[in-house]
Amino acid sequence: MARQERAIRTQLSILKAAAEVFDSHGYEAATIGEILRRAGVTKGALYFHFPSKQALAEGVLEQQFSVIRVPPGPCRLQEFVDTGLIVAYRMRRDPLVSAVARLSLEQELRAEYGSSAIRQWIGASEVLLGAAKEQGELLPHVVPAESAWLFSAAWTGTQLYSQILLGREDLEERVVALFRHLLPSIAVPAVLSSLEITAERAARLGSASDALLEGPGEQADSPQEERTQQAAAAATA
Amino acid sequence: MARQERAIRTQLSILKAAAEVFDSHGYEAATIGEILRRAGVTKGALYFHFPSKQALAEGVLEQQFSVIRVPPGPCRLQEFVDTGLIVAYRMRRDPLVSAVARLSLEQELRAEYGSSAIRQWIGASEVLLGAAKEQGELLPHVVPAESAWLFSAAWTGTQLYSQILLGREDLEERVVALFRHLLPSIAVPAVLSSLEITAERAARLGSASDALLEGPGEQADSPQEERTQQAAAAATA
Repeated sequence: MARQERAIRTQLSILKAAAEVFDSHGYEAATIGEILRRAGVTKGALYFHFPSKQALAEGVLEQQFSVIRVPPGPCRLQEFVDTGLIVAYRMRRDPLVSAVARLSLEQELRAEYGSSAIRQWIGASEVLLGAAKEQGELLPHVVPAESAWLFSAAWTGTQLYSQILLGREDLEERVVALFRHLLPSIAVPAVLSSLEITAERAARLGSASDALLEGPGEQADSPQEERTQQAAAAATA
Repeated sequence: MARQERAIRTQLSILKAAAEVFDSHGYEAATIGEILRRAGVTKGALYFHFPSKQALAEGVLEQQFSVIRVPPGPCRLQEFVDTGLIVAYRMRRDPLVSAVARLSLEQELRAEYGSSAIRQWIGASEVLLGAAKEQGELLPHVVPAESAWLFSAAWTGTQLYSQILLGREDLEERVVALFRHLLPSIAVPAVLSSLEITAERAARLGSASDALLEGPGEQADSPQEERTQQAAAAATA
């Protein structure tokens, strides 16, 4: 294994451990000691990559888009739906994704992390909805920036309710219901009726993305991921 | 002033002070001492009504529906919209309303307060949407319980985003956009086009409800409030 590749793997295993600890205890109660134990690396290696708890939290936040792989297709709105479904699927199964939600929404951390994470979610949605509009998939009155803000906010509220009321057990189903409630007001009818918005699709795409992330193509970029990253970059610029 | 009335006024001024302190510092950092100072009552009076900080938080949560006054009208869906608009208006101006949001969504308190407050919001929405459905205002496929869950969750997400990104400055506008995005999928077209969903309406109804709450009719029940209270009771039963 090349030296650089080894460094990346170490870094990822530290971030995974940090995400687990942030996700279960919150930022304040998280300790570097516990992250070290879970990551199984030396203190020197950890501090080499991440000099502080804050750097670890920022590292976790930066990773959020890298674990979302959406299959490209001809319909941008389906890609938008798929992103929402896959994030729901992964939020129940990947501490990295749910740690980001926790770090961004905790009252004490909002000033520090909340708004930048939220701006990234809105930015990524805006890029997808903007592409959908360009392809004629959205109704003429739709303003991608406004709808992107709303979808992101509504998605986050759905996630929060599902977490508080049922430990996220019904998250995919609720996200499906959310899209079914919101899309009729923005999608052209012919596009709307062609969309697949089901919990089964979430499960199918979710396990496919698990396989992708575990497989050898870990660093391969999909066109969607590129767009998402552009959006994230634009939102934080 | 009758003795009972005086007791109610003392209780309300304590709850108002408690809401202000919870709203600005959160539950953990709130102290009985600061609540006492703000309420301007004796320690004995406070402990007579509320034996603990927990009792104060519960008292604040119980008050949430009493400060929302929605004018009754022939259209249930308009009443539903008006409730969402007035809560947005008051959340920016009344610590009692925003303290409830903070108490319910803080990660550490969710187990204790979050789910009961959320169940009440969903319950109140379900009663209004159920009445709208009975009057033929909703499309035949709509399930009031499912839509009520979603609207409440999406409303909460909207509130949270507006708070994090812009200190709630655009809350009424965002709630208007939320209703415009969600209602087309549940409302009968003729009803949809008759609804007034504007930030101006929020301001108008909001100031009218301010006047109602400050006026002598403070304890008068409107039909809507009765329904809201029934829903809240049903949700916590």
